Amino acid sequence: MLLKRLTIHLSLAVGLGQVEGSIWPAPAKLQTGDKVLFIDQTLSITYNGEFVRWCSFVNPSTSHRHKDQHDLGQIAKDTLNIQLPYTYGYTPAPGADYNSKEIVQAGVSRTLSAIFHKNLVPWMLHDKHADFEPDLYASNGRVTALHITQTDTDDEESPYTALAGEIDESYSLVLAENGMTRIEAETSVGVLRALESFNQLFYQHSSGNAWYTPLAPVSVEDAPQYPYRGLMMDTSRHFFPVKDILRTIDAMSWSKLNKLHIHATDSQSWPLEIPSLPELSAKGSYARGLVYTPQDLQHIHEYAIHRGVQVILEIDMPGHSGAIALSYPELVVAYNKLPYHWWCVQPPCGGLKLNDSRVDDFLDTLFDDLLPRVGPYTAYFHTGGDELNKNSSRLEENVGTNDTAVLQPLLQKWMDKNLARVRSHGLVPMVWQEMPLEWNITLGDDVVVQAWLGGSTIKDLVSMGHKVIDSDSNFWYLDCGRGAWLNFDNGAAYETFYPFNDWCSPTKSWQLIYSHDPRQGLTEDEAKLVLGGEVPAWSETIDSANLDMVLWPRASALGEVLWSGRIDPATGENRSQFDAAPRLSELRERMVARGVGAAPISQLFCSQSSPEECAFLM
Amino acid sequence: MLLKRLTIHLSLAVGLGQVEGSIWPAPAKLQTGDKVLFIDQTLSITYNGEFVRWCSFVNPSTSHRHKDQHDLGQIAKDTLNIQLPYTYGYTPAPGADYNSKEIVQAGVSRTLSAIFHKNLVPWMLHDKHADFEPDLYASNGRVTALHITQTDTDDEESPYTALAGEIDESYSLVLAENGMTRIEAETSVGVLRALESFNQLFYQHSSGNAWYTPLAPVSVEDAPQYPYRGLMMDTSRHFFPVKDILRTIDAMSWSKLNKLHIHATDSQSWPLEIPSLPELSAKGSYARGLVYTPQDLQHIHEYAIHRGVQVILEIDMPGHSGAIALSYPELVVAYNKLPYHWWCVQPPCGGLKLNDSRVDDFLDTLFDDLLPRVGPYTAYFHTGGDELNKNSSRLEENVGTNDTAVLQPLLQKWMDKNLARVRSHGLVPMVWQEMPLEWNITLGDDVVVQAWLGGSTIKDLVSMGHKVIDSDSNFWYLDCGRGAWLNFDNGAAYETFYPFNDWCSPTKSWQLIYSHDPRQGLTEDEAKLVLGGEVPAWSETIDSANLDMVLWPRASALGEVLWSGRIDPATGENRSQFDAAPRLSELRERMVARGVGAAPISQLFCSQSSPEECAFLM
Repeated sequence: MLLKRLTIHLSLAVGLGQVEGSIWPAPAKLQTGDKVLFIDQTLSITYNGEFVRWCSFVNPSTSHRHKDQHDLGQIAKDTLNIQLPYTYGYTPAPGADYNSKEIVQAGVSRTLSAIFHKNLVPWMLHDKHADFEPDLYASNGRVTALHITQTDTDDEESPYTALAGEIDESYSLVLAENGMTRIEAETSVGVLRALESFNQLFYQHSSGNAWYTPLAPVSVEDAPQYPYRGLMMDTSRHFFPVKDILRTIDAMSWSKLNKLHIHATDSQSWPLEIPSLPELSAKGSYARGLVYTPQDLQHIHEYAIHRGVQVILEIDMPGHSGAIALSYPELVVAYNKLPYHWWCVQPPCGGLKLNDSRVDDFLDTLFDDLLPRVGPYTAYFHTGGDELNKNSSRLEENVGTNDTAVLQPLLQKWMDKNLARVRSHGLVPMVWQEMPLEWNITLGDDVVVQAWLGGSTIKDLVSMGHKVIDSDSNFWYLDCGRGAWLNFDNGAAYETFYPFNDWCSPTKSWQLIYSHDPRQGLTEDEAKLVLGGEVPAWSETIDSANLDMVLWPRASALGEVLWSGRIDPATGENRSQFDAAPRLSELRERMVARGVGAAPISQLFCSQSSPEECAFLM
Repeated sequence: MLLKRLTIHLSLAVGLGQVEGSIWPAPAKLQTGDKVLFIDQTLSITYNGEFVRWCSFVNPSTSHRHKDQHDLGQIAKDTLNIQLPYTYGYTPAPGADYNSKEIVQAGVSRTLSAIFHKNLVPWMLHDKHADFEPDLYASNGRVTALHITQTDTDDEESPYTALAGEIDESYSLVLAENGMTRIEAETSVGVLRALESFNQLFYQHSSGNAWYTPLAPVSVEDAPQYPYRGLMMDTSRHFFPVKDILRTIDAMSWSKLNKLHIHATDSQSWPLEIPSLPELSAKGSYARGLVYTPQDLQHIHEYAIHRGVQVILEIDMPGHSGAIALSYPELVVAYNKLPYHWWCVQPPCGGLKLNDSRVDDFLDTLFDDLLPRVGPYTAYFHTGGDELNKNSSRLEENVGTNDTAVLQPLLQKWMDKNLARVRSHGLVPMVWQEMPLEWNITLGDDVVVQAWLGGSTIKDLVSMGHKVIDSDSNFWYLDCGRGAWLNFDNGAAYETFYPFNDWCSPTKSWQLIYSHDPRQGLTEDEAKLVLGGEVPAWSETIDSANLDMVLWPRASALGEVLWSGRIDPATGENRSQFDAAPRLSELRERMVARGVGAAPISQLFCSQSSPEECAFLM
């Protein structure tokens, strides 16, 4: 099928001067040929003229996916064995300075480990029993060298603390027919993006220790359409071990996603260790051990930045903060009040008080502890602000009403102080859309607003001059469609909520995620304020057991919309599922080969066929 | 939370003479107390008076979930580490006779391995940081002995070839306060059911090598409501390695499910090796190696029967058989014809011809090869019969029409011959509902009909005198709600199928699965014809990567409906989600601890709380 597809693209290429290869997300410009080049581990690699050493991150005794060489049958079976332990690769020493050479070197090591140890024999991308592999004994060329040139010097601070768009992620990649490969990029992040594209050109051969690309010569010119391409994990509704977060960061980088938003705390639990407020996690975590220590947090930040991903921490407030009541009950209203729907949208209820100086003292202490520890590693800090419930303020002794006329000025004052705290630590605040749109809170132009309710939200926010992140729940909520997690006793609740869907059912399929254009209906000036988007994965029914398959490859569909744009520049039209589906199937197989349990997007028959064979043709 | 729940049940127990423990599915009669009994590996075990040796199926070097004893924090982290390799336990020697003692012995070994090596410290079932564990140093009693009595002798043949209902699965289990345990059952299958209930009484203690039940004394009298409690895997749309099937069989036995229906072939692929027709799988499989050999099939049958599960193989025909065209094109109409929806419901199309003696010859050869190999291991053989498309017969040279008046008599003749083939090999045929209901095919009273279209289907079928299996797709299709797997090109198809749901969206939540009563609206006599039900997992978007979390624990919800009945005998009302949710959460945690990646059904906060705290109260 790959060869069929290439034939189609090559014939199109005559007219369009551009072809699609297998790279996801689609590069801005890509030309590929049909020559086979093999690659082996003697490849010579340089970075700005200096020789680069690389090392495999895989234990050779366990790494070899395809032990029984020359047996495609065994290989096909091995492909479906996804029990291979995930290898996490290089982690910088804690607190080490940003070192461009070290980062490129580690990126090269990850790339070559993926090519040589975690690659796929792509039988699932070709017709059943097709003879799809190049002849190992023909006089094929070889990839002889990979020369990497970084044309500018990284600012040691900026990769950590750059605002969206401040780091140039563009790159060029040329793999010549003679086997010489050149990567050029302004920044080390650009080099990492190029290396991932390079990786995606190669396959494993079934007949021994051989790897090849069938696409030479290759020429790529690439840069993202949006600077903010994010994914949100929710560590409050379920706790995720650090390794789940690290693995997710790796997988993000494979789809050129660059922002990991961690919704760290909520009413359900407080897993974040705050040394100056130790009771918060000691009492608010689900169990001892299910906490992120300051060292964990630093590790996550550094691991991420070394993969071109910036981590943004969220402490959701003033709603969604009930877990604080387990250690500081005096600061919180309505903790776990029943029936929950009188006081909030989800049990357990609980919000910080709006008119209480003890809350100010608490937040001063919290932010003075936490923000200096995240400030060196990120540009943003998210203060939440979604779904604040008016009724719960009726229970606050110094408020005692749900009257917006009373609550709004209190909240404005509360938010002014809170945003000032964030800014005082050199961070840019982010908030959910309800603060400006529902509560009419004046925020300041620096604040980035995350929109999730769809409809005219984006337009409304950019009209107010806000920078915006699109997380439209009608398109981009990965958690939707998994069924209700609430219990409904026999009787009225049962009848009302039958057949027990979740609130944002149905599932957002990859096609639906792919269909959404965050710039739709905006003027050119308005569109500039849309920094990008983010797929949230609220974790009501997601934990370690099913994380990978909920996220992937659907988050990759967002990756392409935001990196490559919804519009295909070659046609001026929306990108087609016919072009995307085979490439996304291939990416999914690469992810599984690399140890991430992404879900299949279609039947195996369909990944082996042309997109038209699994299409509804009208 | 567990203790809270027990308190509620114990107080109810005063009135009802019965309490619920943590056993899933709920036993017909269960009484539990609140005494703690520890259990250790010196336990004395007998079977019909003879001493039983047991051995652990876990490699001690890798098995220990909780290496760092006495550290609940480490234990909580370990709980979320689901990468533990699955251990498959005892497999009988190929072709060995049914040996009741061997089977009980292996069942005991699996049970004690689960208690001592794959158990859970149930922190996730109690309030955050609650002091839920019994005092290790108090003068607690111990479980001293497990005496198993089988009151009847197994017929060596019958556990393999028994019809639904012919094997008595009932048992009694008494765990006395003095630590003496007695299991009594008529058959070895009944003993296996009792051992699984016994297992579910125990937890691991965090403070060392200690395990306990907090529920002594325990008294169980149990028997199933329905004899057929099934799950269907589809090995044609994706291939599943044998180990996925074996692991699924183990997990089924944990929920007392007893029928594994393997939808073995379809138009997408033919993974079943047929030695006398070797081209079928050589050309019809997705890749060399992705086949089930005769040895694999025998292994699956024997592995299953030793866990009280009977395997039923389906070769779907005359529709859904396109993959045969890859080796025998002359037997098939409309293979992979486009646009597919003119010729069938799903690509690739393809069906066996209805009026061609070559098809008869082929089926004679196929069945003469296959059926003698499954006959010794099962009572049933499923010949499919769903979604036969009339248009495709227009392409058959000896038919040439889609006129039902012509097709129906041809199909009746075709089915008569086919059912005769099955019967001649001593097997009972099963078919999908379309044969009698859509095509008015006369089948014979022995044939079991599988209903999937809901509505009045069950009533219609039992009124005709058919024995029925309920697989209502509105309730029991596990594959629904995962998004479309078809591609929709820009234009008319895109507009028509936006937002790209699958045909049976949304997801069937555990609550919806649990809500369905296959006997609803039937007279007592009609209800007797409902043998049970089955949850199908059609595998368009399911493969090894996500199998476990699609199946589990939702298939367990079916397990309770069919074992325990939709009606709670204590109340005469439908069972409540308030009773079921905590037990299902606990079962899910047990499944994860035992190495099956079941999905969470709710927030961790909810599994730690009482059902009312995560309920919509009206």
